[in-house]
Amino acid sequence: MQNHANTVERCATVSTIQKVLGGKWKIEILYYISLKTRRFGELQRQIGDIAQSTLTKQLRELEADGFISRHIYQEIPPKVEYSLTDLGQSFVPVLEFMKQWGEVHLL
Amino acid sequence: MQNHANTVERCATVSTIQKVLGGKWKIEILYYISLKTRRFGELQRQIGDIAQSTLTKQLRELEADGFISRHIYQEIPPKVEYSLTDLGQSFVPVLEFMKQWGEVHLL
Repeated sequence: MQNHANTVERCATVSTIQKVLGGKWKIEILYYISLKTRRFGELQRQIGDIAQSTLTKQLRELEADGFISRHIYQEIPPKVEYSLTDLGQSFVPVLEFMKQWGEVHLL
Repeated sequence: MQNHANTVERCATVSTIQKVLGGKWKIEILYYISLKTRRFGELQRQIGDIAQSTLTKQLRELEADGFISRHIYQEIPPKVEYSLTDLGQSFVPVLEFMKQWGEVHLL
Protein backbone atom coordinates (compact mmCIF):
# COMPACT_ATOMS: atom_id res chain seq x y z
CA MET A 1 0.00 0.00 0.00
CA GLN A 2 2.10 2.91 -1.27
CA ASN A 3 -0.81 5.29 -1.83
CA HIS A 4 0.60 7.87 0.51
CA ALA A 5 4.13 7.78 -0.87
CA ASN A 6 3.67 11.12 -2.57
CA THR A 7 2.29 12.85 0.47
CA VAL A 8 5.76 13.16 2.03
CA GLU A 9 6.95 16.42 0.57
CA ARG A 10 10.43 17.67 -0.01
CA CYS A 11 11.89 19.25 3.12
CA ALA A 12 12.66 22.90 2.36
CA THR A 13 15.33 23.16 5.06
CA VAL A 14 17.24 20.02 4.11
CA SER A 15 16.89 20.84 0.42
CA THR A 16 18.38 24.30 1.03
CA ILE A 17 21.22 22.86 3.13
CA GLN A 18 21.94 20.41 0.34
CA LYS A 19 21.94 23.22 -2.20
CA VAL A 20 24.27 25.59 -0.36
CA LEU A 21 26.61 23.07 1.28
CA GLY A 22 26.44 20.08 -1.06
CA GLY A 23 29.29 21.22 -3.26
CA LYS A 24 32.14 18.78 -3.69
CA TRP A 25 34.46 20.65 -1.29
CA LYS A 26 32.30 23.07 0.68
CA ILE A 27 32.28 21.33 4.06
CA GLU A 28 36.04 20.94 3.91
CA ILE A 29 36.65 24.54 2.78
CA LEU A 30 34.40 25.91 5.54
CA TYR A 31 36.15 23.75 8.09
CA TYR A 32 39.62 25.09 7.21
CA ILE A 33 38.40 28.69 7.12
CA SER A 34 36.70 28.12 10.50
CA LEU A 35 40.09 27.37 12.06
CA LYS A 36 41.59 30.61 10.79
CA THR A 37 41.45 33.17 7.99
CA ARG A 38 42.85 31.53 4.85
CA ARG A 39 44.50 32.62 1.66
CA PHE A 40 43.53 31.00 -1.62
CA GLY A 41 46.87 29.21 -2.04
CA GLU A 42 46.72 27.86 1.50
CA LEU A 43 43.32 26.25 0.86
CA GLN A 44 44.53 24.85 -2.42
CA ARG A 45 47.63 23.28 -0.84
CA GLN A 46 45.61 21.96 2.05
CA ILE A 47 42.94 20.22 0.02
CA GLY A 48 45.55 19.15 -2.50
CA ASP A 49 43.50 17.41 -5.17
CA ILE A 50 41.33 20.40 -6.08
CA ALA A 51 41.71 22.30 -9.35
CA GLN A 52 42.22 26.06 -9.06
CA SER A 53 39.07 26.74 -11.11
CA THR A 54 37.03 24.42 -8.89
CA LEU A 55 38.27 26.06 -5.70
CA THR A 56 37.51 29.49 -7.18
CA LYS A 57 33.96 28.39 -8.03
CA GLN A 58 33.30 26.83 -4.62
CA LEU A 59 34.63 29.94 -2.83
CA ARG A 60 32.47 32.23 -4.99
CA GLU A 61 29.38 30.17 -4.24
CA LEU A 62 30.12 30.16 -0.50
CA GLU A 63 30.58 33.93 -0.68
CA ALA A 64 27.34 34.40 -2.70
CA ASP A 65 25.46 32.24 -0.18
CA GLY A 66 26.77 34.37 2.67
CA PHE A 67 29.08 31.89 4.43
CA ILE A 68 32.43 33.55 3.80
CA SER A 69 33.81 37.01 3.06
CA ARG A 70 36.66 37.81 0.76
CA HIS A 71 39.13 40.50 1.78
CA ILE A 72 41.43 41.94 -0.85
CA TYR A 73 44.60 43.67 0.35
CA GLN A 74 46.02 46.18 -2.12
CA GLU A 75 49.55 44.85 -2.10
CA ILE A 76 51.85 43.67 -4.83
CA PRO A 77 51.12 40.85 -5.46
CA PRO A 78 47.51 41.35 -4.22
CA LYS A 79 46.66 39.31 -1.13
CA VAL A 80 43.20 37.75 -0.87
CA GLU A 81 41.94 36.26 2.37
CA TYR A 82 38.77 34.38 3.22
CA SER A 83 37.06 34.37 6.59
CA LEU A 84 33.70 33.23 7.96
CA THR A 85 30.75 35.61 8.09
CA ASP A 86 28.25 35.48 10.96
CA LEU A 87 26.28 32.87 9.00
CA GLY A 88 29.48 30.85 8.48
CA GLN A 89 30.26 31.11 12.19
CA SER A 90 26.77 29.88 13.03
CA PHE A 91 27.56 26.69 11.13
CA VAL A 92 30.74 25.92 13.12
CA PRO A 93 28.94 23.91 15.85
CA VAL A 94 27.43 21.73 13.10
CA LEU A 95 30.90 21.22 11.59
CA GLU A 96 32.29 20.31 15.01
CA PHE A 97 29.49 17.85 15.69
CA MET A 98 29.98 16.29 12.26
CA LYS A 99 33.71 15.98 12.88
CA GLN A 100 33.14 14.33 16.27
CA TRP A 101 30.76 11.88 14.60
CA GLY A 102 33.36 11.17 11.90
CA GLU A 103 36.09 10.52 14.45
CA VAL A 104 33.95 7.86 16.09
CA HIS A 105 32.32 6.31 13.04
CA LEU A 106 34.48 6.84 9.97
CA LEU A 107 38.14 6.50 10.88
CA MET B 1 54.31 36.16 8.30
CA GLN B 2 52.82 33.17 6.55
CA ASN B 3 55.74 30.81 7.15
CA HIS B 4 53.61 28.31 9.00
CA ALA B 5 50.78 28.27 6.48
CA ASN B 6 51.83 24.86 5.20
CA THR B 7 52.13 23.28 8.61
CA VAL B 8 48.34 22.99 8.94
CA GLU B 9 47.69 19.61 7.36
CA ARG B 10 44.57 18.28 5.77
CA CYS B 11 42.13 16.96 8.36
CA ALA B 12 41.60 13.24 7.67
CA THR B 13 38.18 13.17 9.35
CA VAL B 14 36.74 16.19 7.59
CA SER B 15 38.28 15.07 4.31
CA THR B 16 36.61 11.66 4.65
CA ILE B 17 33.27 13.22 5.57
CA GLN B 18 33.56 15.44 2.52
CA LYS B 19 34.35 12.43 0.35
CA VAL B 20 31.50 10.19 1.50
CA LEU B 21 28.81 12.80 2.07
CA GLY B 22 29.76 15.59 -0.31
CA GLY B 23 27.77 14.24 -3.24
CA LYS B 24 25.29 16.60 -4.78
CA TRP B 25 22.28 14.89 -3.14
CA LYS B 26 23.63 12.68 -0.37
CA ILE B 27 22.55 14.69 2.66
CA GLU B 28 19.06 15.01 1.26
CA ILE B 29 18.81 11.32 0.27
CA LEU B 30 20.00 10.20 3.72
CA TYR B 31 17.53 12.53 5.37
CA TYR B 32 14.53 11.08 3.51
CA ILE B 33 15.67 7.50 4.11
CA SER B 34 16.16 8.36 7.80
CA LEU B 35 12.46 9.18 8.08
CA LYS B 36 11.42 5.81 6.65
CA THR B 37 12.44 3.06 4.26
CA ARG B 38 12.17 4.42 0.73
CA ARG B 39 11.66 3.07 -2.75
CA PHE B 40 13.69 4.45 -5.63
CA GLY B 41 10.71 6.14 -7.27
CA GLU B 42 9.70 7.77 -4.01
CA LEU B 43 13.13 9.38 -3.60
CA GLN B 44 13.10 10.51 -7.20
CA ARG B 45 9.68 12.14 -6.85
CA GLN B 46 10.63 13.71 -3.56
CA ILE B 47 13.84 15.32 -4.75
CA GLY B 48 12.23 16.16 -8.06
CA ASP B 49 15.04 17.69 -10.03
CA ILE B 50 17.37 14.69 -9.93
CA ALA B 51 18.07 12.53 -12.98
CA GLN B 52 17.45 8.80 -12.58
CA SER B 53 21.09 8.00 -13.41
CA THR B 54 22.32 10.52 -10.83
CA LEU B 55 20.07 9.11 -8.11
CA THR B 56 21.24 5.58 -8.96
CA LYS B 57 24.89 6.67 -8.69
CA GLN B 58 24.39 8.50 -5.39
CA LEU B 59 22.52 5.53 -3.90
CA ARG B 60 25.22 3.09 -5.03
CA GLU B 61 27.92 5.25 -3.48
CA LEU B 62 25.99 5.56 -0.20
CA GLU B 63 25.56 1.77 -0.24
CA ALA B 64 29.27 1.19 -1.01
CA ASP B 65 30.25 3.58 1.80
CA GLY B 66 28.04 1.65 4.22
CA PHE B 67 25.31 4.23 4.90
CA ILE B 68 22.34 2.48 3.33
CA SER B 69 21.21 -1.05 2.46
CA ARG B 70 19.30 -2.07 -0.58
CA HIS B 71 16.60 -4.71 -0.24
CA ILE B 72 15.27 -6.37 -3.36
CA TYR B 73 11.88 -8.06 -3.12
CA GLN B 74 11.30 -10.75 -5.74
CA GLU B 75 7.99 -9.50 -6.96
CA ILE B 76 6.71 -8.58 -10.37
CA PRO B 77 7.64 -5.81 -10.95
CA PRO B 78 10.64 -6.13 -8.57
CA LYS B 79 10.44 -3.86 -5.55
CA VAL B 80 13.66 -2.23 -4.29
CA GLU B 81 13.80 -0.48 -0.95
CA TYR B 82 16.53 1.51 0.76
CA SER B 83 17.04 1.81 4.50
CA LEU B 84 19.76 3.10 6.81
CA THR B 85 22.47 0.78 8.09
CA ASP B 86 23.87 1.18 11.61
CA LEU B 87 26.41 3.65 10.21
CA GLY B 88 23.61 5.56 8.50
CA GLN B 89 21.62 5.59 11.76
CA SER B 90 24.65 6.93 13.60
CA PHE B 91 24.58 9.96 11.29
CA VAL B 92 20.93 10.84 12.05
CA PRO B 93 21.75 13.08 15.07
CA VAL B 94 24.12 15.06 12.81
CA LEU B 95 21.35 15.40 10.20
CA GLU B 96 18.93 16.53 12.89
CA PHE B 97 21.38 19.10 14.25
CA MET B 98 22.07 20.37 10.74
CA LYS B 99 18.34 20.67 10.07
CA GLN B 100 17.79 22.60 13.32
CA TRP B 101 20.62 24.94 12.34
CA GLY B 102 19.06 25.40 8.88
CA GLU B 103 15.65 26.19 10.34
CA VAL B 104 17.18 29.01 12.38
CA HIS B 105 19.73 30.35 9.91
CA LEU B 106 18.69 29.55 6.36
CA LEU B 107 14.94 29.90 6.01
